[in-house]
Order: sequence, then structure tokens, then C-alpha cells
Amino acid sequence: MTKKKKVVVIGGGTGSFTVLSGLKKYPDLELTAIVSMADDGGSTGKLRDEYGVLPPGDIRQCLVALSNSDDLMRELFNFRFSGGSLTGHNFGNIFISAVEKMTGSFNDALKVISLILNVKGQVLPVTLAKVHLVAELNNGKIISGQNEIANNHLVSRFGVKKIYFDKKAKANPEALRSIKEADLIVVGPGNFYSSLIPNFLVQDISGTLIKSRAKKVYVCNLMNQYGQTDNFSVSDFVRGIELFIKPSIFDCIIYNKTFPSRELLAKYVDEGQPVLFGQVQATDKHKYIGTDLLNNKIPKKVKGDTIQRTLIRHDQDKLAKEIVALS
Amino acid sequence: MTKKKKVVVIGGGTGSFTVLSGLKKYPDLELTAIVSMADDGGSTGKLRDEYGVLPPGDIRQCLVALSNSDDLMRELFNFRFSGGSLTGHNFGNIFISAVEKMTGSFNDALKVISLILNVKGQVLPVTLAKVHLVAELNNGKIISGQNEIANNHLVSRFGVKKIYFDKKAKANPEALRSIKEADLIVVGPGNFYSSLIPNFLVQDISGTLIKSRAKKVYVCNLMNQYGQTDNFSVSDFVRGIELFIKPSIFDCIIYNKTFPSRELLAKYVDEGQPVLFGQVQATDKHKYIGTDLLNNKIPKKVKGDTIQRTLIRHDQDKLAKEIVALS
Repeated sequence: MTKKKKVVVIGGGTGSFTVLSGLKKYPDLELTAIVSMADDGGSTGKLRDEYGVLPPGDIRQCLVALSNSDDLMRELFNFRFSGGSLTGHNFGNIFISAVEKMTGSFNDALKVISLILNVKGQVLPVTLAKVHLVAELNNGKIISGQNEIANNHLVSRFGVKKIYFDKKAKANPEALRSIKEADLIVVGPGNFYSSLIPNFLVQDISGTLIKSRAKKVYVCNLMNQYGQTDNFSVSDFVRGIELFIKPSIFDCIIYNKTFPSRELLAKYVDEGQPVLFGQVQATDKHKYIGTDLLNNKIPKKVKGDTIQRTLIRHDQDKLAKEIVALS
Repeated sequence: MTKKKKVVVIGGGTGSFTVLSGLKKYPDLELTAIVSMADDGGSTGKLRDEYGVLPPGDIRQCLVALSNSDDLMRELFNFRFSGGSLTGHNFGNIFISAVEKMTGSFNDALKVISLILNVKGQVLPVTLAKVHLVAELNNGKIISGQNEIANNHLVSRFGVKKIYFDKKAKANPEALRSIKEADLIVVGPGNFYSSLIPNFLVQDISGTLIKSRAKKVYVCNLMNQYGQTDNFSVSDFVRGIELFIKPSIFDCIIYNKTFPSRELLAKYVDEGQPVLFGQVQATDKHKYIGTDLLNNKIPKKVKGDTIQRTLIRHDQDKLAKEIVALS
């Protein structure tokens, strides 16, 4: 039996869900998700505010992606209450937070829920520190909280100058170990300031990543977001991330080069435009792989969900195929 | 291999939890719980009001009793949130209601959760009708809802004349089948008008019980509740239940004949007195078994619980021993 290849996916939320769901279909990969802990919006934000727990939302999405339970259990974890005092709450989030409150340990909660969901692989919070994201805008204004940064109109108007945590965040030692032992590390896709960058604001994550002998791949977002990544090209994204991980680490950049339909783009008109992919050229440092990565199915709106979700998404199978070809 | 004896426990809430927890330790019994669906207080009441679900609370207690999961999962199902928007909600109740909402079926919810909790045996709602309990008091006043009946001071002042559901309730066919096939049927203990009688207000339950060839045992409560069972003796309880199940069906009545400590009785001074057990005499109809059934451990108050819980309880092992001796 050949040794399984160790693949680490760094991100959070829907982007990591897509990558993990695609890679899960390759049985010779051993998957680990390292997940941003900056989320403080929606159901997750309410649970953090009211119960002082760590953010369950991104973690839940990765657990569901790696779950080998039947569809019912996976759907249950994503089920949202609509109406009543539980409105907007996601059952999986309540589940994770209840076990954390009961045991006093987020790690224990993940172990219990990984068993229940029959998770193959590991889902690791990048840090166990209770941190909040802070953005300094180009006009000097300070915006606190990931959800606020994602939604405050001043962010899109003035743009982000600097982003940091409200306190020091030590890395989860298990996350560091998995980076050290990885054969392939996939960063992204994901909301730039909410899901991606917060991973690299955690102490020692970038340093360990730089030292790791794994092949490193960056999967670029499909869409820009006003105020965060205005008119970014694929190369701008790479440069943007590399501000937080110096020196340049990516062996390869995977990006989409198909335009979404006019119908879908029309729905995005207030949020952003496709990432610019026309100008991409291979450099000495990076190998660029541009191909069609679009998911042509439009996801249904989940009743009770209070957060704006991405409609233009990566196709998990197309994306996994490109990643696996590099491993 | 000898055939397992089929034991059906009829009740709801803490009483059934105690009986089932004790009987579970006897591997040659096949246990079924038939559970009252009248509860509308606390976490259960909120979920019923806000999401139109069937009452999960009593069902949850029976599932936990029959669970062979580790302690963590069992504790998780009984975990209550304190503070915040989930305050007073019980995690297991939310779990049951989320699966019911998602699948549209209470029965499916029970199947899923029975698997997760590794339940040995069956837990069956006595009815799948969404009923509410109504009491007519001796002063003519109508009180609606189980929780209201249990707590309204008028009930204790004037006493209950008549009790019924707000609509017809068909029996769960699986509950009827289990009664027909039972070798031993245990009724009680449990709150008289909240947990016990509502089972017999469901169509065909009493009729099927009367026809069943099983040995039938009634386990009498330890304590009286003002307004519901004022100064009841053990025989008064039997007569009270038999008003709803005619003709007399019990082969045997098990009752406690030890006084609780003064310390515990002092805590009950506003709620009720011990059931009178001094006058019990065997009749032609019934065999009475009186013995020490008291649990000497005082249960801890669960943080966040909004319902008054019983402190004077049956000892599950003492009770199970008496029941098994009859099987």
C-alpha cells in the first residue's frame, strides 16, 4: 500500500467546503482543513456574543465537507431555524457550541462531532484564541469585527489599509504540525479579509508555511469584493496574500478563466466584478494554471439564512482535478 | 437462546426515565417506552409554540435512558443553555425539533436520534397528534395547557373535575402494536395529569391495554401534588387511573413505604406531601407490593433549567428489581 499524500487546505467557509468536498473523492489523500477563527457574523456571531464560544460556522462547513455520514446528517448540520427565538441559528453551530460549553473545550467538541459525522480527515481551528478582526481603513477609521468589515459601507468606500487581530493569537499546535508534515498545501479560495488573511495573522502560521517542504498552491477567488479587492487581478491576489506570508511561497496558482453568465453577474452588480484574469502571465516565481473552474449550478437560498452567500462558486470537481494533478 | 421478555413502560418524563434506566440493566428484557405527548412547558413549550413541532422533552428523557452512548452524549442531550437567546433550551430538545422540522416527520427524527444515541429498545410517542391538555376545575373554570394545569394556583385551590384534549388524538399504531405484543406493561410513575393520564386520553390506548394479555403493573408516585392528588393514598391513585382505564387492569401495584428525610420533605412543603401508604391492603383485584423505593441521592439543580424538578425520586435499581421479579 502506498503512503497517502497529506493535503492541508487553509481557509474557512464556503471556499474550503468546496475544495474539501472535491478532494474527498480521492481516496489516496489524507485531508486536513485549517480554519480561520475570525468569523463573528450571523448565527456564529450570536453564539460568540451570547455564550463566549469560539466561532463554529467555518469549522462546521469543513466538518460537513469531510463527513461520510448520510445526507440527512449532513443536511441537519447545515439546517437553519427560521422564525422564533432560534431564527437564523444553524443547528450544527448550536451543536458545536453546546458541546464546547458542556466540555469547556472546543477541541473536545470537534472530536465528538467528528465521530458523529463520521469525518474522514481532520478539521483544525487555526487558533484557539478568542480573537476579533480589526481593520484600519485608508481614511484612518477603525472598523472592528469580521462581519462589520465585510458589511460596513465605509470599507468599500475607503478601502482597507491594515488588518490585524484585537489580541495576540497563538497557533493551534496541531495546525502547525499538519503544515510541517504536509505534502501539498492549498490556500484559498475564500473571502480575502474574512477567511484567508485571518489564518496568516495567527503567530507562526506563515513562518511554518515558509519552512514547510510541501508543494504550495493558491486557489484564486472568482469574484472581487468592493473595498476589499477592488479590480484585483489574479496576480494582485497573490501579491496581497504574500504581504502576509513573506517571502513568496506559492509554487502554483490555480485560477478560473471563464466568465460567469450575465444573469449571475447581474445579481452581483452591487458586490463586485469577476477577478481579472486576462493579464496573467507565468513568472519565474509562480506557475499559473488558468482553466474553467465555474460551477454552473446556482445554489438555492437557504431559508432563514441571514448572511449574503456567494452564488458564483467554484465547481468542486473541476477544482479538485487541477489540485490533484499537482500532488 | 431464550426469547427476550417484552416490557412496555407507559408514562413520560422523569418517572419513565427512572424505570427505563433501571430496567436497561437487565439484558433479557426488550424495552419499549410509550410516552405522553401533552407536555407544553419550558424548552418543550417554547419549541412547540415557535416551530409547531411535537413535544420533544419527555421523548428525550426516554431516549437518554435507553441510550448506550458514552456519558458525554447522554449529558449533551440533557444540556441546557443558560443566558442568551437559547436560555432554558435543552440541546436534545433542539436536536429532536431540528430533525423533525427538516424531515417533516417526528418518527424519522426519533429514528435518526436513536441511532446517534445508540438506543437499545424503542421510544414511541403515544400519539402523533398535536394535542393540548385542558382541565375543567371543580369551580367550573377551564385551564388550558399542561404547563398551566401544573402551575396555575387555581388548580391546586379548586381541584380538577375533568381532563381532556383540545382535539381527538389517534394512537400511534406502533404504540398499539407494542401494547398488544407485550409480556409486561408498567404504568407510571409520573405526574398524574401531565405524564400519566394523557396517555389514556389517546383513542384506543385503554381498549388495547384492557385486551392485552400482558401482566400489568402500576408504579405509584412517591409524592402528592396539591390540587391534582390531594392526600391521595396509593389506592386513590389506582382508582384515579382506573377512571380512565375501565375495567380495572392492574395485576399488581408497586409502592414505596419509606418516608423521605425531613430535610427533603421541608423542600416540598409548598408542593405536596408523601402519598399515603399506611392504609394499603391487598384486595382480590390487586396485589400490592410495598417496599423501600426511595432514592437517597439528591439530584443537582441543572443550571438554566426553568422547570421545578422532583427532588424526591424513586431509586432506579430498587424499582427495577421489584418489576423484574414480576416479569
